Amino acid sequence: MTNYDSAAIRQLVDRRRPQHALESAFYTSPEVFAADMDAIFHRHWLYVAVECEVAEAGDAVVVDIGASSVVIVRGDDDEIRAFHNVCRHRGARLLPPGPAIVGNLVCPYHAWTYGLDGRLKFAEHMGEGFDHSCLGLRPVALKSMAGLLFVCLSDDPPDDMDDVIRQMEPYLAPHDLKNTRVAHTADLIEYGNWKLVLENNRECYHCMPNHPELTIPLFAYGFGFAPEELDAEELAQAERYDTLRRTSHERWEAGGLPSRLIEHLEDRPTGFRTERLPLDGSGESQTMDTMAACRVPLGGLRDKASGGLHFWTQPNAWHHFMGDHVVTFSVIPLDEGRTLVRTKWLVHKDAVEGVDYDVENLTCVWNTTNRQDADLVEMTQRGVRDPAYIPGPYSPYTEGLVEKFMEWYCMRLKACLG
Amino acid sequence: MTNYDSAAIRQLVDRRRPQHALESAFYTSPEVFAADMDAIFHRHWLYVAVECEVAEAGDAVVVDIGASSVVIVRGDDDEIRAFHNVCRHRGARLLPPGPAIVGNLVCPYHAWTYGLDGRLKFAEHMGEGFDHSCLGLRPVALKSMAGLLFVCLSDDPPDDMDDVIRQMEPYLAPHDLKNTRVAHTADLIEYGNWKLVLENNRECYHCMPNHPELTIPLFAYGFGFAPEELDAEELAQAERYDTLRRTSHERWEAGGLPSRLIEHLEDRPTGFRTERLPLDGSGESQTMDTMAACRVPLGGLRDKASGGLHFWTQPNAWHHFMGDHVVTFSVIPLDEGRTLVRTKWLVHKDAVEGVDYDVENLTCVWNTTNRQDADLVEMTQRGVRDPAYIPGPYSPYTEGLVEKFMEWYCMRLKACLG
Amino acid sequence: MTNYDSAAIRQLVDRRRPQHALESAFYTSPEVFAADMDAIFHRHWLYVAVECEVAEAGDAVVVDIGASSVVIVRGDDDEIRAFHNVCRHRGARLLPPGPAIVGNLVCPYHAWTYGLDGRLKFAEHMGEGFDHSCLGLRPVALKSMAGLLFVCLSDDPPDDMDDVIRQMEPYLAPHDLKNTRVAHTADLIEYGNWKLVLENNRECYHCMPNHPELTIPLFAYGFGFAPEELDAEELAQAERYDTLRRTSHERWEAGGLPSRLIEHLEDRPTGFRTERLPLDGSGESQTMDTMAACRVPLGGLRDKASGGLHFWTQPNAWHHFMGDHVVTFSVIPLDEGRTLVRTKWLVHKDAVEGVDYDVENLTCVWNTTNRQDADLVEMTQRGVRDPAYIPGPYSPYTEGLVEKFMEWYCMRLKACLG
Repeated sequence: MTNYDSAAIRQLVDRRRPQHALESAFYTSPEVFAADMDAIFHRHWLYVAVECEVAEAGDAVVVDIGASSVVIVRGDDDEIRAFHNVCRHRGARLLPPGPAIVGNLVCPYHAWTYGLDGRLKFAEHMGEGFDHSCLGLRPVALKSMAGLLFVCLSDDPPDDMDDVIRQMEPYLAPHDLKNTRVAHTADLIEYGNWKLVLENNRECYHCMPNHPELTIPLFAYGFGFAPEELDAEELAQAERYDTLRRTSHERWEAGGLPSRLIEHLEDRPTGFRTERLPLDGSGESQTMDTMAACRVPLGGLRDKASGGLHFWTQPNAWHHFMGDHVVTFSVIPLDEGRTLVRTKWLVHKDAVEGVDYDVENLTCVWNTTNRQDADLVEMTQRGVRDPAYIPGPYSPYTEGLVEKFMEWYCMRLKACLG
Repeated sequence: MTNYDSAAIRQLVDRRRPQHALESAFYTSPEVFAADMDAIFHRHWLYVAVECEVAEAGDAVVVDIGASSVVIVRGDDDEIRAFHNVCRHRGARLLPPGPAIVGNLVCPYHAWTYGLDGRLKFAEHMGEGFDHSCLGLRPVALKSMAGLLFVCLSDDPPDDMDDVIRQMEPYLAPHDLKNTRVAHTADLIEYGNWKLVLENNRECYHCMPNHPELTIPLFAYGFGFAPEELDAEELAQAERYDTLRRTSHERWEAGGLPSRLIEHLEDRPTGFRTERLPLDGSGESQTMDTMAACRVPLGGLRDKASGGLHFWTQPNAWHHFMGDHVVTFSVIPLDEGRTLVRTKWLVHKDAVEGVDYDVENLTCVWNTTNRQDADLVEMTQRGVRDPAYIPGPYSPYTEGLVEKFMEWYCMRLKACLG
Repeated sequence: MTNYDSAAIRQLVDRRRPQHALESAFYTSPEVFAADMDAIFHRHWLYVAVECEVAEAGDAVVVDIGASSVVIVRGDDDEIRAFHNVCRHRGARLLPPGPAIVGNLVCPYHAWTYGLDGRLKFAEHMGEGFDHSCLGLRPVALKSMAGLLFVCLSDDPPDDMDDVIRQMEPYLAPHDLKNTRVAHTADLIEYGNWKLVLENNRECYHCMPNHPELTIPLFAYGFGFAPEELDAEELAQAERYDTLRRTSHERWEAGGLPSRLIEHLEDRPTGFRTERLPLDGSGESQTMDTMAACRVPLGGLRDKASGGLHFWTQPNAWHHFMGDHVVTFSVIPLDEGRTLVRTKWLVHKDAVEGVDYDVENLTCVWNTTNRQDADLVEMTQRGVRDPAYIPGPYSPYTEGLVEKFMEWYCMRLKACLG
């Protein structure tokens, strides 16, 4: 891992001006990137996969995170475990990134063979004194949150994850993730620092000028506005949304769907935020016509207009849970100027492609929106590299959640750099 | 911007052996490149565009220079201004590189809107206390020299530019740049350090073995030779050229075309050199048959055999002004081993492609020559990276202007590194 | 050349755990790579070409080694010489990589002209006081070992090469390299550090799971196994091989073919190892059917089943000499994570393609094996970059020669770093 000077980075963090974008170095310096990978991505819980990707014993999925790689595999005892994807002999990768079905985990180089529990079972030609027991695969901490799989690459993961799970499970459970499957995955490389990707996600100030498709189902005013700037028509719209949110929350909660805002973005290691948001039009789904994209409802949800539960986790994910499908996003930094955004669309496991749903219709809004966001992130990355760049002020109305992400980031960097 | 150790670079400069090529580090070290970008490219006047590219109010052209980017735009008041291409909110680029036509400068991210004079006109959702007046676009120094546009990225540009303009305008004015337009642009990435590109331009020692096309109109002996090495035929040629230069200068100056050499390459921040040079054959233009490539003369020049006014500026440009067209070159470093050479061919604004000129004929000599030079620069870059490379001696006859470029470079580096 | 901290690298070397793979930094750090290039590749004898590539006066071959480049050329006096491929004027490369036929060595830039003995013969425009005698091409040390050409980039090459030549010539001479020619060359870029490429070559532990083609002619047990782990059938195979090796050695040596093992891998600067190994099947050649690929025998070898003489040199080569053809391999590091493996197949100079041999048949085993090894090297490079990587133990039975390579490497690094 690239070295970095903790004191220099600590200084950068300390001089950050609140309510303003970060200095250029945070987005462009390889040293800050190395610190981010070490302090943020190697010491926090990362959303990386869904339980349904390892539905059966022997199902595995490999996720690369920077120079690290993790094998997630379901054992014959039905336990899901995670291991570092590194042979204990000479270090070869056991599996390439992506899904696999395995009996054992066999290194391709010299056929060292590990069980699905990580134990080293066979290693040829090592002689009689060889002690297999010390050379099992190195485990990676793993938690399932109602079917969302999180890993932590540290041996000492933040201990607040069980509490997040406790708070979130009632919100997520109605969508019954364990009975879904991945209908589509899209990997998009954005040419910007991972924090620009997150900042972009933490506000909808840019939605009106940039996301004509997303703002069909999603209310752009749902994430803030300056009330004194609205004209009469816009004010009426804002009030309509406000009323819809209040009445929807009441109806959903009465029907057993937890909906009210929980926000702990900047006050804990595993920062998160959730709220069930009403959608426009029919109120069913994030599609071009706002109607459900899949005919088979998730978890037997009977209220078709169940809106979209948004759920954010820090540092690397956001999700939209609807009645008919779920869209999950994970963010994986590649280097200081490139970031992978992996989007998965989940439908009920019994839904049949071409019969119950059409992939193009299912994925249209977010595929389009992702590409628009990738363009914005790239033009911002180019700008913040410019020696003439000066961090500007955030809007107090529409960028409050960007500020909270920044507060969390700075707080965690300070905590982890020591 | 990458850091560099000024003292170490100063040492490199101090031990430079006069009349010899530079040491390897000057061409291959990222630290020297960072110093070059800071001391040379951010603190000197750079030729970047032509006035005719922003002929009307609202015409803009964006030029990237390393990590910097500059918007050049003509305002409704007919003033041409330059701004850093960085939004004052979160830093996004306002426009991509290349030409644009704009009413205002609107950031694509959150629609912050700047006037063509750089003032911030609108910024939504910023609240009532928000002060627009501090958040205008950051200006970039700009000067027009008879239609050639120069910018300086420093807030304290060299103050000798007005004097250069005063000396050069009589030479350039007859070609009436303001009534031209760009007939063709070619961007060529050369795989060598920017100084190798400049050195290559500053001598014609390599022309005989490498540029059969260019040496049809251009006299290879025009930039020096060792007289004692010439045989009788070569001496006769050299004398023919000498006579032609003298008689042409007399005829041109008598007809109102300033022609005599002005050379201030190594004694001022804005080093330059100019001279009107006779061309071979018909003497009209730098084409494969030495005849004018465009039927519409520039600026009403009546002497068709008006040769080619060569004009160099340091650090990054050279130009050839002929009676029928102008070729301008700007050099933009990309990294220590890659350099963009942007060539533009200008013709009279009323000339019609396919009728008055043919693009292939217009561009053939310099497109061919540029590609030959790119090969030479690449094989030199490879060689100077070799640990076995030792800087060799310059020819006292044919590389005197390379030496002057080096003296200027070292002088400026010392002045700016402090 | 990139700087490195000798003391820090010396520390890495000192803490190496014997009988274990190296730490991650040895494979991934640009600083260690710079030290490798300086201490190993610039101060040891490198195998780079075969005499038959410069068979006639004026034949040249250019080999790039990192940032260095060497011209090997046969002079009019029939001497083969090597020079740095750098013009003494402004440093341009004289020739591109690969073969050439030349009268003189003429720099393409300004036509400086060197004789095949490296003397500067002409340089135009340099004036009367110019001293040609100091500006000849810089020579590179070169030795031929029975037709294999080795160069050393240092001015003070290891002095044990003549002794290696003395020991090896009786083994190599029967194959009469000087009367061969190159039937095919394959350049393969492997995405791993050069030491992973060498380690991969120094053991056949990975052959069984990975090289079904190579293990047709080659006995996988020929480079070690754990005897206590073999079952009855495997033991019988191992014994068959042991007997075959013993009887073959006796027969070959009686017939004038030196065959017995010489191993000096870790006890001298120019580490090497050789042994004539029996092949399976017909015992003739490393082909898919174990039969000779070329009908014209090398050096008049009459015993068709003359096996395969393996010959390794450190740091960068291995070879297989058979009765009908020779396969030579040279390893050239590109950067810490990329390595060029250049494979050449040599046949008798009188053999006619399509008549006496078929290129596909000749090259099939090693082209296939090289690609398999490239995959293994790449997945190991990815794994050793992983922060979770811990160097594992070598097999005492099958990885002893990998350990010897590592001992040599560490010994030489210490000797050269001082």
